[in-house]
Amino acid sequence: MPINDVAELLDRAREGKPRAVARLISLIEDASPQLREVASALAPLTGRARVIGLTGSPGVGKSTSTSGLVTAFRRQGKRVGVLAVDPSSPFSGGALLGDRVRMQEHATDPGVFIRSMATRGHLGGLSWATPQALRVLDAAGFDVVLIETVGVGQSEVDVISLADTTLVLLAPGMGDGIQAAKAGILEVADVFVVNKADRDGADQVVRDLKYMISLGRVDRAGPRWRIPVVPTVASRGEGVDEVIAALDAHHDWLTEHGELAARRLNRASVEVEAIAVEQLRERFGDLRGGQALAKLADQVMTGTLDPYAAADSLVEGLRAEPSRAEPSRTGPSRAESHQPSEAPAS
Amino acid sequence: MPINDVAELLDRAREGKPRAVARLISLIEDASPQLREVASALAPLTGRARVIGLTGSPGVGKSTSTSGLVTAFRRQGKRVGVLAVDPSSPFSGGALLGDRVRMQEHATDPGVFIRSMATRGHLGGLSWATPQALRVLDAAGFDVVLIETVGVGQSEVDVISLADTTLVLLAPGMGDGIQAAKAGILEVADVFVVNKADRDGADQVVRDLKYMISLGRVDRAGPRWRIPVVPTVASRGEGVDEVIAALDAHHDWLTEHGELAARRLNRASVEVEAIAVEQLRERFGDLRGGQALAKLADQVMTGTLDPYAAADSLVEGLRAEPSRAEPSRTGPSRAESHQPSEAPAS
Repeated sequence: MPINDVAELLDRAREGKPRAVARLISLIEDASPQLREVASALAPLTGRARVIGLTGSPGVGKSTSTSGLVTAFRRQGKRVGVLAVDPSSPFSGGALLGDRVRMQEHATDPGVFIRSMATRGHLGGLSWATPQALRVLDAAGFDVVLIETVGVGQSEVDVISLADTTLVLLAPGMGDGIQAAKAGILEVADVFVVNKADRDGADQVVRDLKYMISLGRVDRAGPRWRIPVVPTVASRGEGVDEVIAALDAHHDWLTEHGELAARRLNRASVEVEAIAVEQLRERFGDLRGGQALAKLADQVMTGTLDPYAAADSLVEGLRAEPSRAEPSRTGPSRAESHQPSEAPAS
Repeated sequence: MPINDVAELLDRAREGKPRAVARLISLIEDASPQLREVASALAPLTGRARVIGLTGSPGVGKSTSTSGLVTAFRRQGKRVGVLAVDPSSPFSGGALLGDRVRMQEHATDPGVFIRSMATRGHLGGLSWATPQALRVLDAAGFDVVLIETVGVGQSEVDVISLADTTLVLLAPGMGDGIQAAKAGILEVADVFVVNKADRDGADQVVRDLKYMISLGRVDRAGPRWRIPVVPTVASRGEGVDEVIAALDAHHDWLTEHGELAARRLNRASVEVEAIAVEQLRERFGDLRGGQALAKLADQVMTGTLDPYAAADSLVEGLRAEPSRAEPSRTGPSRAESHQPSEAPAS
C-alpha cells in the first residue's frame, strides 16, 4: 500500500528511499489531490541541488558520458538524480541492450535516482513536468541533478536551458553535429564536450567549435564565460575528470558573477508561467461546458472568423468566468490532443 | 518600398507573386499593426489547401523526398508551398551543398513558394507561427502545402500533426528510426515511406513497420485507415508516384469518413488556443509594470512560495486586470527568454 502522508514521504525521500522519491514525483505528475500539499512542503527545502543539463544528438555517446559523470559524482560522495527526457536514452527505456548494460551499475546504487520523463501526449508536458520532478529531487537532498535530453527540438532545448550549467556533446563523423549547433544548441552551451576524440575528425570538430565560440560571444554584454571545449573518450573513461573540472569551474563562475541566482530566478519564472499557462489552458477547455473553444474553432474552420478574433473571444470568456475556489486539476490538460479521434465532433 | 495595403498584397499573392506572399507572412510573424487586418482578410479565403506533413530523422533523405513530391505535384499543375521547420532542411538553410543544388530547380519556379520557419527564440513560436503561415499560403491559392520537419522533439511532432496527412520517412541503417517511431512518430503517421529501399535492411524496416502497425491500431475506435508502407529510392525518383497515390488515397479516405473536417477543426482549435495562450503569456509579462512575475519567481526561488501558489496569484492578477481595448502585441512574447543575460534582475 503506498504511503500518502506527504510529511512522511518527504522524510523517507530525504533518507534516500527511492520509492518515496518516485511516489512524490508521481503525486505531482498525476495531478493528485495532494499535489498542492506536496508543492508547498517541497518549497522551503529547495535551492541546494546543482542542476546540469546534458544534450547531444543520438550516437554521440550521450548515455556513456552520462554514466561516466554519475560515477565521478558518486566517487565524490554526492547523491545524483537523473531526469531523462530523451526518447533514445537508456534511462527512458528506448535504447539498445549495450546501453542498458552500461547503466546497470547505477540501477542498484541507492545514491542514484533515475527517472524518465514522458515527453509525448500533451503540449507543455515537458516544460511543466521536468521542473517539478527537479524540485522533488532537490528537496530530497540530491546534490546533483542531471537532466539528459536529445539536442533536437524546441521543447528539449527549452528544458535543458533551465539547468544551471548546460553541457553539449558532439562527436566527429556526425554530420548533424555542427548543424544542430547552428540551430540553437550553441546558445545554450556552457561546456562543449567532443566525445570519441580518438576518431578521425575530432580535432576538426574542436577547432570548428572554438571558432564558432570566438564568433558568437564577441558582442555578448556582461560578465563573459569562456566556453571550454573538452575532448573525451567516454567509452574508456578518458576526459571525465576534465569534464567535471569544467563543470565545477562554470559553477564557480556562475556563483561569483551572480549568474547562478539570475539563472535560477529565470527558471522559477519559466516554471510559474508554465503552471499558470496550463491552468488557463484547462479553463479554456472547460469554458461554457467545454463548448466555447469547439464553437470558435468551427467558425475559424469555416472561415467566418479569423483565429485572432476567436482567441480574443476565448480570453474574454475566461475573464468573465467566475473565479474558481479550487481548480479541479492542476497538471497539463490531458484532454488536449491532436489525434483526430479525440477532436471535437464536427 | 514594400506594399502595405493588405487588399492589394492579397490580390498579388493570389496571382502568385512570391514577394507578396512573403510580405503577408512577415506582417503576421512580426506582429505588425496590420496583423489583425491580414488575419481577417485571409479568413474567408482559407480551407482549400491540402496540408501534408513530412517528417523524418536527419539522413533518411527527407530533402530529396520533399523535392520529389514538389516535382510530382507541379507536374499535376498544382501550386505548392513548403514550410520548412527543420533546422537540417535545405529549405531552412541548414543543409549541405548537395541538398541545396537538389532544390535549385524549385527556387526559380513561380508555382513553388518556400519558407523556413524560425523554431528558436521563444516558447510557443513554432505552434503559433506555422499555422499562420499556412493560412497565408492557403488563402493565396496554393493547392498543396508541405510542412517539413525533423521527427524529433515534441513541438515538431505537435506541428506536423496539424497536417491533413502526415508522411513519416524512415531508412534502413538508421538505428534511431524505429526508436523515433516508438517515441511518438508512429501515432501521427498516416503514410510510412521507407527510403533508400535498395539498401540492405530495407525489407526488415518495412516488416517492422507493418508489424508495429498491426499491433498499434488494433484497438482504435472509429473508421480505420490502414497505414501503407511505401518503399522508395528518392535519389532515383523511384516510388514517388506510389507515394503520391498513397497521399491521394488517404485524402479520399479522410473526406469520405468526415475525418478531414475533424482534423481541420482540431487544427483550428489548437491554433486559436495557441494564440490565446500567447496573448495571456504576454499579459503575464506586463502585469504590474512587468514586475508581478519577477516578484513571484523570486519568492519561488528563495523557497518562500511554491510554484503552484505563485501561478494562482499570477492567474488571479490577470483576471483582476482591466480589459485591454487593443492588445499592443499579439505575437508570442519576444521578451521571454531562458538566456540568463535577459533574466529579470535578482
